[in-house]
Amino acid sequence: MKEIRVPVVERILNANDQVSEQNRGWLHKFGIFSINLMASPGAGKTSLILQTIARLSSRVSMGVIEGDTARVTMDADKVRQAGVPAVQVNTAGGCHLDAALIASALSQLPLAEMHLLLVENVGNLVCPASFRLGTDIDVLIASVPEGDDKPFKYPAIYRGLQALILNKIDLLPYVSFDMDNFRKGVEMLNPGVAFFPVSCRTGEGLDSWADWLESRTRQGTQSSD
Amino acid sequence: MKEIRVPVVERILNANDQVSEQNRGWLHKFGIFSINLMASPGAGKTSLILQTIARLSSRVSMGVIEGDTARVTMDADKVRQAGVPAVQVNTAGGCHLDAALIASALSQLPLAEMHLLLVENVGNLVCPASFRLGTDIDVLIASVPEGDDKPFKYPAIYRGLQALILNKIDLLPYVSFDMDNFRKGVEMLNPGVAFFPVSCRTGEGLDSWADWLESRTRQGTQSSD
Repeated sequence: MKEIRVPVVERILNANDQVSEQNRGWLHKFGIFSINLMASPGAGKTSLILQTIARLSSRVSMGVIEGDTARVTMDADKVRQAGVPAVQVNTAGGCHLDAALIASALSQLPLAEMHLLLVENVGNLVCPASFRLGTDIDVLIASVPEGDDKPFKYPAIYRGLQALILNKIDLLPYVSFDMDNFRKGVEMLNPGVAFFPVSCRTGEGLDSWADWLESRTRQGTQSSD
Repeated sequence: MKEIRVPVVERILNANDQVSEQNRGWLHKFGIFSINLMASPGAGKTSLILQTIARLSSRVSMGVIEGDTARVTMDADKVRQAGVPAVQVNTAGGCHLDAALIASALSQLPLAEMHLLLVENVGNLVCPASFRLGTDIDVLIASVPEGDDKPFKYPAIYRGLQALILNKIDLLPYVSFDMDNFRKGVEMLNPGVAFFPVSCRTGEGLDSWADWLESRTRQGTQSSD
């Protein structure tokens, strides 16, 4: 079975990488900096996007792509209600976004008016790590109630990140979460990664994240001019 | 690309179903009732297994298979420390367990001495729903901090369940979780599914779950004699 399976998977991956490069070129042509937001289900991807919009949308023009496995529109609806253009992408049960889905979504966004694109991947700590989308950076949202052992259990996704957000720090008093162990796992896999402990519920830590993202966006759009 | 891809995927699924049927036959031959425990990363699969062992292992002889994407043994170590035989299975980055991994793990367990097998799948709400393992029932552990919208976003995994556990109810006062909305989503997809709100931290609700599982185990092992 392996003789049949491996080459096909490789061909699909290569096709994805090609479309991913096209997406990257397209986004840079428009001077758009883009991030791929990954997380477990329920870690707070949409909440983080809404909090980021609240802090940045008056200073940076944004667009959002919302990925889900099911035919739902609730996340894109929330983003649009916050005044930011959003496209909902349905993977039809698939466990990750891929570059072709992003290419299709890009054609529905007002790229000429945007400087920052936030992509919300499917909630999953495994599959999204293997499929490039053409975005500039990968960001993971971990969350306190998931537990401090997740870097050790899902190392592939922690390895390639440019930023790590730890959400739900307001729950630290109510759960057992060993911050030293979590940081130890992260440093082992990805030394020096930008780290933002936040609470999307209370707002704690989110200004630092938004400032960092604004700064990276300005660097990114300058360098791609 | 689709003309190449679909038949290969179908063939792999069929091969998995065949091994899954072999696993089921093997387990029933030994009079073992088995459950496939699925959840998001960090929802509390291992905690639930340990709490189940604490309540049932004196009445029902058990074994555990622990699935992880990485080469770690911490979960199996915890189960063995609790006095129950356990095998750690590594998917080498794969996003779900499959029937062949279970077949291999079964050969390392003392089947003749067991009546109940708990299988902990990889933390993922998408991929595990598509691969049968040969277990008797599928159980999902949702958790309060994930949010009440998960049935709407990950419908495939909610549809096939025989039991649903909602863990971390001790966090209900500290997060926004609309229980009515959650139940509405579950009922829409899986009407009448056995439902156990629990806290693996405080122990609340776990006796009901353990009693139900013991009862199902006794029915299951009788019917397969």
